[in-house]
Amino acid sequence: MPSAVPLVRVVRSGLVESVHAGHVAVCDAKGRLLAALGDPHRVVFSRSSTKPLQAAVSLRRIGEGLPEDLVAIMCASHSGEPEHMRAVRRLLRRGGVPASALGCPPDVPMLPGAARRAGRPTRIAHSCSGKHAGMLFACSRSGWDLDTYLAPRHPIQREVLRAVRRGTGVDRPVVGVDGCGAPVHGVPLSGMATLFARLVRPEHLGARAATVATAVAAMRAHPFLVGGSGRTDTLLMTQVPGVVSKVGAEGLFCAAVPVDGIGVAVRIEDGGDRASGPALIHALAELGALTAEDVERLAPVARRPILGGGRPVGEVAASFRLRRSRG
Amino acid sequence: MPSAVPLVRVVRSGLVESVHAGHVAVCDAKGRLLAALGDPHRVVFSRSSTKPLQAAVSLRRIGEGLPEDLVAIMCASHSGEPEHMRAVRRLLRRGGVPASALGCPPDVPMLPGAARRAGRPTRIAHSCSGKHAGMLFACSRSGWDLDTYLAPRHPIQREVLRAVRRGTGVDRPVVGVDGCGAPVHGVPLSGMATLFARLVRPEHLGARAATVATAVAAMRAHPFLVGGSGRTDTLLMTQVPGVVSKVGAEGLFCAAVPVDGIGVAVRIEDGGDRASGPALIHALAELGALTAEDVERLAPVARRPILGGGRPVGEVAASFRLRRSRG
Repeated sequence: MPSAVPLVRVVRSGLVESVHAGHVAVCDAKGRLLAALGDPHRVVFSRSSTKPLQAAVSLRRIGEGLPEDLVAIMCASHSGEPEHMRAVRRLLRRGGVPASALGCPPDVPMLPGAARRAGRPTRIAHSCSGKHAGMLFACSRSGWDLDTYLAPRHPIQREVLRAVRRGTGVDRPVVGVDGCGAPVHGVPLSGMATLFARLVRPEHLGARAATVATAVAAMRAHPFLVGGSGRTDTLLMTQVPGVVSKVGAEGLFCAAVPVDGIGVAVRIEDGGDRASGPALIHALAELGALTAEDVERLAPVARRPILGGGRPVGEVAASFRLRRSRG
Repeated sequence: MPSAVPLVRVVRSGLVESVHAGHVAVCDAKGRLLAALGDPHRVVFSRSSTKPLQAAVSLRRIGEGLPEDLVAIMCASHSGEPEHMRAVRRLLRRGGVPASALGCPPDVPMLPGAARRAGRPTRIAHSCSGKHAGMLFACSRSGWDLDTYLAPRHPIQREVLRAVRRGTGVDRPVVGVDGCGAPVHGVPLSGMATLFARLVRPEHLGARAATVATAVAAMRAHPFLVGGSGRTDTLLMTQVPGVVSKVGAEGLFCAAVPVDGIGVAVRIEDGGDRASGPALIHALAELGALTAEDVERLAPVARRPILGGGRPVGEVAASFRLRRSRG
């Protein structure tokens, strides 16, 4: 089993202070591995990178006619800014679901300023609240129990599991508990790359094709809602319309390049979230999906500053060459 | 050059979700390497682990008679709790230095609750404010310029550099800028282990012996001031009186065992701070400096819970065997 390889270096005052090693998998919608680095089959939890698929599952139950911004917030790991909170509240209202039904734990918004303004932690401020609101909306529409919607045996979660199997091509994912309390799925990194290729080639997803296309279109149309101010997903989808991306916790970052029909999944072995964005952007550039100008426009997230006394004295920057697979 | 070895595993729902690799060096006060793992000579920035030495340098200028709790806060990476802020204010007042002279950047306290209560970021809430207040006190006492005290060529920083050379046994440390804006020193990890051995065998530190002993005694007498609620340094020095420890940023953690006269330095290669405490505690246990009961009492920081929906579903835990050096 190949081990993790250095992907991202953290430089302070000219010294390589820290190194993040990790894995990369690039797949097409048939699940073929096109390029890799480290161990492309490292089993990882899908974390929030599955949200577009989870949203597609909820959308099949909710039915048509949901405004596109409310679809986008279902796919989000949002920063808890006012726009995000408003969208989640509208989604809950539209589903006739009380905010008290949200099963994600209380949290404060990600941005320090927003966190101070928000005061006490709330469930609606949790970055996954849109996903939870969507699942609850789907349960309400289907007449399913709202109290137990996070149990792996609940019908909504069984539908998610079936979608994960079909999307990743993995028959028996490990089922665990995500940070937000929802079931999370452990699959090889190559399965996540395959899933993302299929998000932009949804004909591989059977009955879920239509709602997956709806979810992906909503993310591309409302990138701010998917993340927030200064977030990598938001900048990437705003600056580079040809890419769909979704961050996951613990150093996971996945993206799809619709024109090429490929999916890219990057995983930092140590779970370091500061490194996954720079690594994903570098991988996309290596694959020709981003131009040098695109990367330049993404500089605030591609090469994050390291501060000394509040001023930049170094950076977090990716540097690696992908290994193309033969055949 | 040996590469980093797996030290700490992050398990979620039974799956090893992430792995932190790193390095360990164990030295005596003569600088002899007694045990190691990974690359014990990896050059690392000393970060906040040098604070006891920086405090000793300031104390030589301040002179005798400073209350022990004010010495402890000079050695602290404090959590910005009310007790910490009060101590920093008292130290500034005693030195006749205005809070506006502090050169560390404004920050909010570490604990989310304390951060909410504190409101806007302030310099005094920065975890390094005690060190800065001590340096300013020393400058004021010596008639040195307060405005430029963070410049590497300022007399207080030149004294710190001389102390780092003598303490670590490293002639020419890399000089960089620490997160708080103060000069920081890049030395082999074994140099940090040597420094910690010398902190408890201060006869190796020449003219600084007396103030180093004062700083170490203050840390052991006031472990809460050195860290704060739930912090590893505080728990370790409260529960295990025979150990002196000091965390540094970017996955560094150093400790000394006075009875054995040894220093231990652990560095997580990826800079992951969640892993350095568990790794240090495991290394101390491996060396026989902690009993199984000590480790049990330190469980909240030795094996940190991983949460799913707010409930523990896994843990961050260290597992490795140190390699004893020959001869």
